Amino acid sequence: MTNDRYEIRLSGSGGQGLILAGIILAEAAAIYEGKEAVQTQSYGPESRGGASKSEVVISGSEIDYPKVTSPDLLLAMTQESCTKYLGDLKEGGIAILDSFFVEKWPDNANVIALPLTTIAKEVTGKTIVANIVAVGAIVALSGIVSKESIEKAVLARVPKGTEEMNLKALQAGFEAVANH
Amino acid sequence: MTNDRYEIRLSGSGGQGLILAGIILAEAAAIYEGKEAVQTQSYGPESRGGASKSEVVISGSEIDYPKVTSPDLLLAMTQESCTKYLGDLKEGGIAILDSFFVEKWPDNANVIALPLTTIAKEVTGKTIVANIVAVGAIVALSGIVSKESIEKAVLARVPKGTEEMNLKALQAGFEAVANH
Repeated sequence: MTNDRYEIRLSGSGGQGLILAGIILAEAAAIYEGKEAVQTQSYGPESRGGASKSEVVISGSEIDYPKVTSPDLLLAMTQESCTKYLGDLKEGGIAILDSFFVEKWPDNANVIALPLTTIAKEVTGKTIVANIVAVGAIVALSGIVSKESIEKAVLARVPKGTEEMNLKALQAGFEAVANH
Repeated sequence: MTNDRYEIRLSGSGGQGLILAGIILAEAAAIYEGKEAVQTQSYGPESRGGASKSEVVISGSEIDYPKVTSPDLLLAMTQESCTKYLGDLKEGGIAILDSFFVEKWPDNANVIALPLTTIAKEVTGKTIVANIVAVGAIVALSGIVSKESIEKAVLARVPKGTEEMNLKALQAGFEAVANH
């Protein structure tokens, strides 16, 4: 990664753990790799309907504008969020879709569809770690931080007693991209 | 509260739960009161030293600029954060200091010093809920959301099994301001 600004938008519904995913990505970049990072939740009228959006900007230099306008990488974990945000992608940007929840997208879109929630269930027995599978896939696809940094950031943030389960989920996200 | 923008900065060290406090304040305003809210973590070089900063902007209308420049309310839970940010307060703004950690501040500053961490320990046996004592104090002092909304937001975010402890901490924050 250069000093360039890299914008990530994580979208889906409340309860999918997107805020935690954003915090982990930002802390991996900032605390473990010495980059600048800003992590934001914007709550508009859609938040009353259960939609959730978490954004991360990572840069090698100071971040003046913390909002994400055209993501380099979009995660969409519901059909609604995919439909709403896919068109915002930067030219050359890519979207990761959770194909357990997202069933349709334009043929010409630059997407990688992975059954994140199914993978979480298969690998750990819990769908709740689909967010960490997503984090693994994001890092594998973008290379925005090292595998070591994201592992440290995951371990620093997940509840005590769930470390092993979350590392499995992270690894499964890496493998899903590698095997795609 | 009117439609005016209200800026809150929560500052201290990593591990004091300031991100969670920010999320709870933002969700109380947005999900339970229908306002707009943006909640941000900025990780700069100071984050490698263990400093933590979480910001919330609440407004009755759309929030174009999510950064906090001159807070209406500052929470400082370490001496370092107090020294660093007290001068940024908006004219007429107020700071809540955790007097367990903050020992000195300018005589002419508009501050309310409360032993947040001591209160947390006395009321629940755990210092870890000092962030929720702080949330109670912030809401009591600012009136930015109702007591009912902040209670709902706390219950929606704290770990299962800790609800009662956190509601006690919240209530203690309200009382600390009332009795000040």
